[in-house]
Amino acid sequence: MRIALAQIDTVVGDIAGNQKRVLAALAEACSQKADLVLFPELALTGYPPEDLLLRPGFLKAAERSLEKIARQVRGCVALIGTPHFDSDLYNACAVCAEREIKGYYRKRYLPNYGVFDEDRYFASARDLFLLELGGVKVGITICEDMWQPGPPATDLAIAGAELIVNISASPFHVGRELLREEMFRTRARDMISFVAFCNLVGGQDELVFDGHSVVIDDEGEVIARAAGFEEELLVVEIDPTDVIARRLSDVRKRALARERDVPEIAPLVLTAPKRRLRARTAPAHVTPFADDLEQMRRALTLGLGDYMRKNGFGEIVIGVSGGIDSALTAALAVETMGADHVHCVSMPSRFSSPETREDARRLAEGLGTEFREIEIEPMLREFENALAPAFSGRESDLTEENVQARVRGVLLMALSNKFGWLLVATGNKSELSVGYATLYGDMAGGFALLKDVFKTDVFRLARYLNEQAGRELIPATTIARPPSAELRDNQLDEDSLPPYAELDRVLEAYIEEDRSRDELLRDGFDADVVERAISMIDRAEYKRRQAPPGVKLRPKAFGRDRRTPITSGWRD
Amino acid sequence: MRIALAQIDTVVGDIAGNQKRVLAALAEACSQKADLVLFPELALTGYPPEDLLLRPGFLKAAERSLEKIARQVRGCVALIGTPHFDSDLYNACAVCAEREIKGYYRKRYLPNYGVFDEDRYFASARDLFLLELGGVKVGITICEDMWQPGPPATDLAIAGAELIVNISASPFHVGRELLREEMFRTRARDMISFVAFCNLVGGQDELVFDGHSVVIDDEGEVIARAAGFEEELLVVEIDPTDVIARRLSDVRKRALARERDVPEIAPLVLTAPKRRLRARTAPAHVTPFADDLEQMRRALTLGLGDYMRKNGFGEIVIGVSGGIDSALTAALAVETMGADHVHCVSMPSRFSSPETREDARRLAEGLGTEFREIEIEPMLREFENALAPAFSGRESDLTEENVQARVRGVLLMALSNKFGWLLVATGNKSELSVGYATLYGDMAGGFALLKDVFKTDVFRLARYLNEQAGRELIPATTIARPPSAELRDNQLDEDSLPPYAELDRVLEAYIEEDRSRDELLRDGFDADVVERAISMIDRAEYKRRQAPPGVKLRPKAFGRDRRTPITSGWRD
Repeated sequence: MRIALAQIDTVVGDIAGNQKRVLAALAEACSQKADLVLFPELALTGYPPEDLLLRPGFLKAAERSLEKIARQVRGCVALIGTPHFDSDLYNACAVCAEREIKGYYRKRYLPNYGVFDEDRYFASARDLFLLELGGVKVGITICEDMWQPGPPATDLAIAGAELIVNISASPFHVGRELLREEMFRTRARDMISFVAFCNLVGGQDELVFDGHSVVIDDEGEVIARAAGFEEELLVVEIDPTDVIARRLSDVRKRALARERDVPEIAPLVLTAPKRRLRARTAPAHVTPFADDLEQMRRALTLGLGDYMRKNGFGEIVIGVSGGIDSALTAALAVETMGADHVHCVSMPSRFSSPETREDARRLAEGLGTEFREIEIEPMLREFENALAPAFSGRESDLTEENVQARVRGVLLMALSNKFGWLLVATGNKSELSVGYATLYGDMAGGFALLKDVFKTDVFRLARYLNEQAGRELIPATTIARPPSAELRDNQLDEDSLPPYAELDRVLEAYIEEDRSRDELLRDGFDADVVERAISMIDRAEYKRRQAPPGVKLRPKAFGRDRRTPITSGWRD
Repeated sequence: MRIALAQIDTVVGDIAGNQKRVLAALAEACSQKADLVLFPELALTGYPPEDLLLRPGFLKAAERSLEKIARQVRGCVALIGTPHFDSDLYNACAVCAEREIKGYYRKRYLPNYGVFDEDRYFASARDLFLLELGGVKVGITICEDMWQPGPPATDLAIAGAELIVNISASPFHVGRELLREEMFRTRARDMISFVAFCNLVGGQDELVFDGHSVVIDDEGEVIARAAGFEEELLVVEIDPTDVIARRLSDVRKRALARERDVPEIAPLVLTAPKRRLRARTAPAHVTPFADDLEQMRRALTLGLGDYMRKNGFGEIVIGVSGGIDSALTAALAVETMGADHVHCVSMPSRFSSPETREDARRLAEGLGTEFREIEIEPMLREFENALAPAFSGRESDLTEENVQARVRGVLLMALSNKFGWLLVATGNKSELSVGYATLYGDMAGGFALLKDVFKTDVFRLARYLNEQAGRELIPATTIARPPSAELRDNQLDEDSLPPYAELDRVLEAYIEEDRSRDELLRDGFDADVVERAISMIDRAEYKRRQAPPGVKLRPKAFGRDRRTPITSGWRD
């Protein structure tokens, strides 16, 4: 039996466009003589459609689109993720064959943690859907269904499924692709069943779906894996006939069957088309996983690129300071859009050193982008004059530093507004965690590319990009110089913050692992670093609430993933 | 039996502070000889604690606090809302008496719609908790439990409860207090049971809890109602002995009992203390509901005041333009904090008319606040110069208007930073809906007071405040003048937007009622207004995502209440 996994990049809400993407992949799969074609979870609406799912007109449009697609399905079976309303709303997998919708499997386990809110939209069902295609029994699951070690997957296996398919929209964070595939391999071994996992790929606001669709045999071996971070139609010939033999000699499933009261499932029987000549598929390929840094690079460029494309932006503007954050942002932007579509703007003040000014220029030259320098002193002077009566007798403090950052924000937004360029903010996760960033200043923008990248990873990524390029995309002097916001004389980040190497470890433990202050101290972190970090993190929530979206890369990103009250008396 | 409803204003996360609030109300209830004292849902942690609930240290702190409180409970029974971990996490009501925790009722129905995310945090239980206090059977429910017409409340009634208590954190929107109380009255009649609803009061980020705690007799009559929008200890003597008589002659509950297989519930029997002399309570009072405008006024001032107090702000700064939005914001700010704590700043440009400049000044004089005028021309000139090389050959457009708004934003934020004043943004819901506001400009601030107030309601509220004050708090000329952003010559809002009276009706239907474009046209709205409004609303999502929090006043507010993707191909 030949299966095709259509790892496509959908657009949330763009039902007409997603229909085209589905039909194109379907035609290609047919031309490769696939018997079964899988599409990702909610392929018709994109994922996550959020409160669009509360609009009846939206659901009707998805339904009409599915009917149109079904009429094009012949000579194979297509499994297509779609919302399905029938007395209540379900996250469903439509089974299309012979030019019609044969039925729906409705998702049982609805994730409502982390970035997920599926209980907000969907009812949960108790379906078991078994398909018999050319004599092979295929069980259907949707995403979270398979993250549970038991039913529906185990019940499907007990009922005879030799292949369990899982259509998913499984978002990325660094390392997740390995955990996920390990889980699927264990499931395949537990159930003595082939597993085919078809994942979404692409960026949607803060989320990136990494693809990495995979087909695993009943011994847990990966027989085919699609690339990460790009579209692919993965076509593979599988032969699940050994499954029955292996199940006869492995009694675990039989033991499980005694425990469970699995209802009789009448499979939907569909004939696989008889083919005179089976077209050849390319031998199944297993695209290797890239390492962490490469995955981060690809997730960032996919997330940014899809945000641009799906929102109709063609060009990017970035304020470059000569520092490493803006340099990395610019290098990734160029990789995403090409140098002709990136505009670098340096906005030096009296506090900018000749070295950083020069590095900003060298960066743009090295990347081949447009470069523009705008001195901010004239604006600063006028703000100082205008505020002098109010500020008389007051010492200079963070206020004056913030004015500098905000003058830059106004200039960049003016360029963005005038030319329709997307302003990409350059702050990293370490800064955003402790509030070491100016609201409406360096935080301004439509997208905050490095929002979920710790400062120590900014350095790692910068070195990595240079290595890969074989040249100094990012000037070595930029990487070597101690970080500074250059908002006053001789300022260094480490005057205000603990060293990043220490800080980032505390941030990771406190933000992503929910370790309490006491636990952090017990873990042996420096008490002063812990106290300062925690108090800064909690106080900065109001700023994060007004930050632009950025790519989630870590197990817990700010935003929908970590929902913290602004008003809070809790001190950890 | 005497019951006390402690309608208190808690602070999310401030467990130590909430403990003090609970103990103070408990002492007062004891001094008034209450037999039963009710506290709101999650009174110990505040509501909603959001992801603080994922921190084990936070849960432990709440548990320790509850134990301390329980040791102070004697001579009465206290029902206290708290998270409770026992194998899994529950939203619970702790029953405290005789200096100990006697047990927990665990919430059955967890709301996970609108502004609620309770499935994210809590497990749902199937408890039925019946208390027998001095011979009176009391059934316990938590918030959403009673919004379901069936169990647990009906099961409790079948099991003999003569009083059903409901501890709640029920957020406000205009008109909700009536709907809610009507629901409770119907429940009381359906169950032939007294109902006591103890609600939270106070502001928490975007939510306002309105109080309006109420005690209803078994015929559905309100016998006591606490004030809205302020703390109150409502003490009332009730006599549920007629309940049994009425149930004998009303067979509905008996019929229901036949349908239900209600488990035997052994009530927790507690003796009501014998009192030599029962202290008198004041006769039960029924505080009348205020009308819509008064409720909006009180919700706005409570929401703003609590945001200030709970986040440690003492002073407010507002940019006043001479227009009605900033005038209403300033008037409400003065009502909240007093004129001495409000700073009005007028920032005229070449486009500001002498009339609006004068109105800005008159407003501040009338309110008695500090007033400062800062001309923005010098900054504008320098921005124009700095951007001239980039903009050469380009027509003036929205960019130049945005620069003006952003220069004002920089000035206001500088004052905010220097003096620790909270910048309150002045935009209304109509503007925010259609994106008629400048990100980092007039949208800048820590709180956006009128974020959920339609422009037509801004006018109504302004007139109402003047009527109530018996003088022109808000200059009549400000109210009479056609709205203008004054960002170019002779500009009127209606040049860019449909008339507000029409626009607001479309916004209400599209945003709050999820009517589709086709439905709106069928409803008879002007096609041009509908098309323009919808396309503007959908395009402005990225701006709203970066807006400050503001008080939810309407059935569906932007933010957690309406979760819309930024990247979306859906066109209604």
